[in-house]
Amino acid sequence: MTDQPTRTPSTSLSKSHGRIAVRPSLQPRDLMVDTPELAGTWKAKIITLLPTAFPGMLGESLTGKALQDGLWQLEPIDLRIFGEGKHRNVDDTPAGGGAGMVLRPDIMGKAIDFAQNGLPSDREKWPLIYLSPRGKRFDQATAKRWSKAEGITMICGRFEGLDERVIEHYDIEEVSLGDFVLTGGEIPAQAMIDATVRLIDGVLGNAESIEEESHSNGLLEHPQYTRPADWRGHKIPEVLMSGHHGNIAKWRADMSKSLTQDRRPDLWTLHKAQ
Amino acid sequence: MTDQPTRTPSTSLSKSHGRIAVRPSLQPRDLMVDTPELAGTWKAKIITLLPTAFPGMLGESLTGKALQDGLWQLEPIDLRIFGEGKHRNVDDTPAGGGAGMVLRPDIMGKAIDFAQNGLPSDREKWPLIYLSPRGKRFDQATAKRWSKAEGITMICGRFEGLDERVIEHYDIEEVSLGDFVLTGGEIPAQAMIDATVRLIDGVLGNAESIEEESHSNGLLEHPQYTRPADWRGHKIPEVLMSGHHGNIAKWRADMSKSLTQDRRPDLWTLHKAQ
Repeated sequence: MTDQPTRTPSTSLSKSHGRIAVRPSLQPRDLMVDTPELAGTWKAKIITLLPTAFPGMLGESLTGKALQDGLWQLEPIDLRIFGEGKHRNVDDTPAGGGAGMVLRPDIMGKAIDFAQNGLPSDREKWPLIYLSPRGKRFDQATAKRWSKAEGITMICGRFEGLDERVIEHYDIEEVSLGDFVLTGGEIPAQAMIDATVRLIDGVLGNAESIEEESHSNGLLEHPQYTRPADWRGHKIPEVLMSGHHGNIAKWRADMSKSLTQDRRPDLWTLHKAQ
Repeated sequence: MTDQPTRTPSTSLSKSHGRIAVRPSLQPRDLMVDTPELAGTWKAKIITLLPTAFPGMLGESLTGKALQDGLWQLEPIDLRIFGEGKHRNVDDTPAGGGAGMVLRPDIMGKAIDFAQNGLPSDREKWPLIYLSPRGKRFDQATAKRWSKAEGITMICGRFEGLDERVIEHYDIEEVSLGDFVLTGGEIPAQAMIDATVRLIDGVLGNAESIEEESHSNGLLEHPQYTRPADWRGHKIPEVLMSGHHGNIAKWRADMSKSLTQDRRPDLWTLHKAQ
């Protein structure tokens, strides 16, 4: 039962970013005052044009409870604040022509300097990530690596994305959620933070759950069943009802292997090579 | 400029699921009354334990504006409603033992029957999807296929997931966001709906933008630049400032190819085979 989420209504969490509640206010936030830090607590900083979209799904369920409990922290950084002119412009037309708009390097540079101020420059300790379909694909190994860091800064693109010079200047790591295109980097940021935060100690109640699941051992997870034993004429496989732990473990391992062979020959090849 | 999102504050959208606003109420929703349909409008039905997490990010930006404009519809279906007993239980311990909880087939069956009532049984017209790390990986081709359907039903897992008999009984298509594990299917659902909805006519203002972007032609997108021409000593490549459309197009195509060869040899192999 420890893996069950707390059923807190999302509304109560929608403005909470960890232990320090952030409430809407007519006063602009003072940029010179750092967000109060919980020492030693993993933190995600998100540079975004949609700061109100956070914590979003991350404020729900297990990640939301862990955020409330101070097991991790979230700091959305509104890119618009760094924009210029009456409309706080952040983008301009692509050099050389073409559709869409490109985020300006001078504006993004200011936001990144603000976000990185006082952080470790060692990227192993604090990765600096741009969410981009051109990047290396995110996977469970990346989630594990990030969960061992002190925190992470993620840049969410919109429109046609970042000026290439920003990526080169800051040596930003491009990471992709997969081979598809989204309207922005905010959903990928939430997905990657969810995958990472659940690996932080204390976030999941039940460590065993992590060991068994898909992609943790390079294999897909075996089928699961629960009561009723007979549902619309479909029965739970007999071996699972036998009480014979050895046979159950063998059946599950066999199913896990055959599922992986059948559905993901690429993973199966990697698994055999281990 | 057409690709620019409407900067509506998320709060004003957080309870809107299309043209029909859904407001919190003390009265339970009548299960026998169908959600008002906008005829011929693509619809996503989401079976979830976290219905308040929707529309979430999908209520922001381009997808949010399109939802308000009635270009697509969203119907979260609260699995808890179909739960049993005082606590509306939806899960039970895994048959054969082990950590976590499995969603009960009888409860999920009722939710699926409710969701699918009156929908086309042809799965090309209305895919029935379970978001699972064991599934086929979601990609741009899947988003295109789904955007041509009349709508989609997505089942979000939590805990140890669905009873295998439900997947088999309804011939549910398992689709994975990638090779990593999340606390639930809600973020993947939002990612896949975002990727799909932006391909629906009228959602993006500028069709050209779709043609050029990563994964649409099997290649990664070329680098982008915008003003200022000189930023912290980094200059925009000269060819882009030349005004010579032929040279610019060639430079971009070359960059796109070399980026793909360098970063994603797998995509490059597929591209050459076309």
